[in-house]
Amino acid sequence: MKKNVKFLIRYDGTRYFGWEHQPNTDMTIQGKLENVLSRMAGLPEGETVTVIGAGRTDAGVHARGMVANAILDTEMSAEEIRAYMEQYLPEDITVAEVKFCAERFHSRFKAIGKQYCYTCWIGEEKPVFERRFVTVLPKVPDIDRMREAAAYLEGTHDFKAFCGNPRMKKSTVRFIKSIEIRRSGNHLRFYYQGNGFLQHMVRILTGTLLEVGYGNMAPEDIPAVLESLDRQQAGPTMPPQGLTLLHVDY
Amino acid sequence: MKKNVKFLIRYDGTRYFGWEHQPNTDMTIQGKLENVLSRMAGLPEGETVTVIGAGRTDAGVHARGMVANAILDTEMSAEEIRAYMEQYLPEDITVAEVKFCAERFHSRFKAIGKQYCYTCWIGEEKPVFERRFVTVLPKVPDIDRMREAAAYLEGTHDFKAFCGNPRMKKSTVRFIKSIEIRRSGNHLRFYYQGNGFLQHMVRILTGTLLEVGYGNMAPEDIPAVLESLDRQQAGPTMPPQGLTLLHVDY
Repeated sequence: MKKNVKFLIRYDGTRYFGWEHQPNTDMTIQGKLENVLSRMAGLPEGETVTVIGAGRTDAGVHARGMVANAILDTEMSAEEIRAYMEQYLPEDITVAEVKFCAERFHSRFKAIGKQYCYTCWIGEEKPVFERRFVTVLPKVPDIDRMREAAAYLEGTHDFKAFCGNPRMKKSTVRFIKSIEIRRSGNHLRFYYQGNGFLQHMVRILTGTLLEVGYGNMAPEDIPAVLESLDRQQAGPTMPPQGLTLLHVDY
Repeated sequence: MKKNVKFLIRYDGTRYFGWEHQPNTDMTIQGKLENVLSRMAGLPEGETVTVIGAGRTDAGVHARGMVANAILDTEMSAEEIRAYMEQYLPEDITVAEVKFCAERFHSRFKAIGKQYCYTCWIGEEKPVFERRFVTVLPKVPDIDRMREAAAYLEGTHDFKAFCGNPRMKKSTVRFIKSIEIRRSGNHLRFYYQGNGFLQHMVRILTGTLLEVGYGNMAPEDIPAVLESLDRQQAGPTMPPQGLTLLHVDY
């Protein structure tokens, strides 16, 4: 019987070329999931199950709450599917939940919001235990200045200046519900909540906030950066390893 | 000028053959530290600085608070030494502190206590983000039973049954000040505090407590295991990756 199956997936993205299929490599999260599910379904050579993800994460980006779904023709229970996947997926991808869901559920189209965290490391010691999941900062930024700048980014704006894809044809208008910046010991975390994010957007937002934190830009410069719609006016794209998709809202 | 220099060191032991020098490999923590310090001291080919560690950690074991010392002939400040070491040590070894100390300080002989943590993972999900630092348990042990068993292990005993070295010639009497077992989410942590630990002792203690937790042994069996002085009577040696040296007391 055909069932629409929903997955909650977590992964350490260090070894992968991102979520989405790439030519000439099977080292993508989507590819690993599809391989396991195609094997489970006993599909003939050359046929594969299609797994739809809530969004694409870039190479090196992690997820604690990626949501995906797939149409499976199976008699297995949700728990049997989960146990099978856990057994055959590599050690850096885990399936936290499997649920049968309504036929109309689509993990990408039905998503109404996403939460990301960008984690930086501050300190003279190297982050030996977390080095795959943080970006080391060369100096300590001013958090109050960054919070002032973040306030200008919240709300609905055209984020074209914060989009990593210069050939983006579709709307670059997005709604950011909140940006929270928290320091805890050696960690400086940037939490982003919004209805959707453009390519590299969270990494460029973080790079721009850090420019403010370092004194290279003023918080009051942010509105002009937004209005410019010019990628060159925003800060640098931060490296992928500090970024984690925390949650997808439906 | 010759100075006795004390180091506080943290490392992810995954890639290493343990603390101590091994023939035919430079992948030991001691070896990496000695290489960097010998280079810093500008010693001639073949001569090396000797680094004394508070204890030996096994292959795959981690440390958040290893203490070591070395006699260095240097004009550098403590902070300059730390910065130099940080720069040249690999990404999985960090020097958190460097201090000049009294000539009589010896990181092994002056140590009066050590604290270790053994971390297990309970849950159907794989520990994708922490897989190098935890041991996955096949089932959930009974914590109250393990605490009862742990109480028999506290105090001063001959721990020969819990020693991984069958040719141990010296005293196997040790004092365990406390064993604490705490569950937090998917983590089950065993904290050990004592005046010193035999080879593999923390891993065998944990393996034995888990045998009690699984119902394969009774808490009341522990005194007989201790009295037997027989390694075969204790539980299995748990794998190294769950073990971390937390602190050395002086």
